[in-house]
Amino acid sequence: MSLSHSDSYSDRYRVLPGAALDLDAYDADDRGPYTRKKEAVADLQALREQLRALQERFYAWDKRSLLIVLQAMDTGGKDGVIEHVMHGVNPQGVQVTPFKVPTPEELAHDFLWRVHKAAPARRMIGIFNRSHYEDVLVVRVRNLVPPDVWGQRYEQINQFERLLADTGTVILKFYLHITKDEQAQRLQARLDSPDKRWKFAMGDLAERKLWDDYMAAYTAALSQCSTAHAPWFVVPANRKWYRNVVIANILVETLTQLDPQFPQPEAGLDDVVIV
Amino acid sequence: MSLSHSDSYSDRYRVLPGAALDLDAYDADDRGPYTRKKEAVADLQALREQLRALQERFYAWDKRSLLIVLQAMDTGGKDGVIEHVMHGVNPQGVQVTPFKVPTPEELAHDFLWRVHKAAPARRMIGIFNRSHYEDVLVVRVRNLVPPDVWGQRYEQINQFERLLADTGTVILKFYLHITKDEQAQRLQARLDSPDKRWKFAMGDLAERKLWDDYMAAYTAALSQCSTAHAPWFVVPANRKWYRNVVIANILVETLTQLDPQFPQPEAGLDDVVIV
Repeated sequence: MSLSHSDSYSDRYRVLPGAALDLDAYDADDRGPYTRKKEAVADLQALREQLRALQERFYAWDKRSLLIVLQAMDTGGKDGVIEHVMHGVNPQGVQVTPFKVPTPEELAHDFLWRVHKAAPARRMIGIFNRSHYEDVLVVRVRNLVPPDVWGQRYEQINQFERLLADTGTVILKFYLHITKDEQAQRLQARLDSPDKRWKFAMGDLAERKLWDDYMAAYTAALSQCSTAHAPWFVVPANRKWYRNVVIANILVETLTQLDPQFPQPEAGLDDVVIV
Repeated sequence: MSLSHSDSYSDRYRVLPGAALDLDAYDADDRGPYTRKKEAVADLQALREQLRALQERFYAWDKRSLLIVLQAMDTGGKDGVIEHVMHGVNPQGVQVTPFKVPTPEELAHDFLWRVHKAAPARRMIGIFNRSHYEDVLVVRVRNLVPPDVWGQRYEQINQFERLLADTGTVILKFYLHITKDEQAQRLQARLDSPDKRWKFAMGDLAERKLWDDYMAAYTAALSQCSTAHAPWFVVPANRKWYRNVVIANILVETLTQLDPQFPQPEAGLDDVVIV
């Protein structure tokens, strides 16, 4: 199962640097080449096996880091991506950092301080569940700092990400694109399910009222900060199974292109006798 | 497939506090109740599913931390346990810390400083791949500090682990018990396999020559630091499939006993209408 031959998942969903972005033009219901969910679920299984094998080599290779940034509106599926796409990847090579409301110590530093601390070391896959982009999303929508402060951050983010990229980190940023209707259904599902009701926070409804402001903030972030060295991808995410397949494909495409290799053995091992 | 009814895996392999320990009396070839590897592999699959479900609740519960300490001689299987037992557990709830040769900054602090920093936060499962026990193992065997310094560490470790336990961390410490002959076979297998040869380090042979000294150091560590609040387990590890089943069982037994629950939902959700 694949897209047309010329079209990788990476190319199809990447936000082009410098291009005007219209999120409404991205179909959140996109199901790609799939007519049936079942086919996508089978493909995801195979992709996870590829990802597991590639990560084993990437970890042993010990030459680069991989940083995955996940951003979405509430219920967009950040946790689901971590659980379902990264399922089965060796936890020793993965480091997940959830970014919450900053602590007083974090607020006493520049906004990238806590982010830099969490950057993945060589050989590691770092996953940011939310990220420094909150500093141009909720911070902008909620007016937590003046416009001239958040206005500078797009360029500051680009420079910071360039540092990471220039020093060996491969960066992939995923915006999980759901519609406002889909969010309503997912919030309702949380309310209706005894095992999920605890996830429902009244605060989510307050954010939901600001949907259009958030879309404007996402549009600015994605269009100003999708660069060659740190691209954004708009991932159709109304269908969880397609969202997972898109991200798994982009990870497999990226790691395949890096072509990580097992290291060379020490010299002189041919004469070793173990006693 | 189970042991006798009265005998949990936790009870069977726990080092009793204060008891004299004879590592030679532990059969590294132990295969428990299994006559065939295939049965154990099937059981491991089921145990991993139980572990996944228990971890989901443990993470949501957000009341306790779980710290897993892994120690073994080279090739003992620490990496294998992380890969095979934790396979499929949500990486968002797991944090693996490999402890390497200390950095100058780490050496400028007490030996527990870097360990405390890596302690798992509430709701997290922390896995130490090697640990503060190296400070009474390689450090003792190699005379890296004087005997009166490492001699104090057993009690310092017990006090430190008591702090973690008293403040909410459940601690499980696994010594993966292999024989010297089994290590020889595994080192030889690394030499002989093109995909694994890069893992072979000449330094491993130097450590192997000190096998008996290491056994004495392990015996001291396990007998002096297996406490009610932070027990050591001697895991038979010559058979990887049995080693994995033993650890998976102890994790499932421990988490089942904790009985983590999904949190209570916020009050007032019955009247919520999502618009």
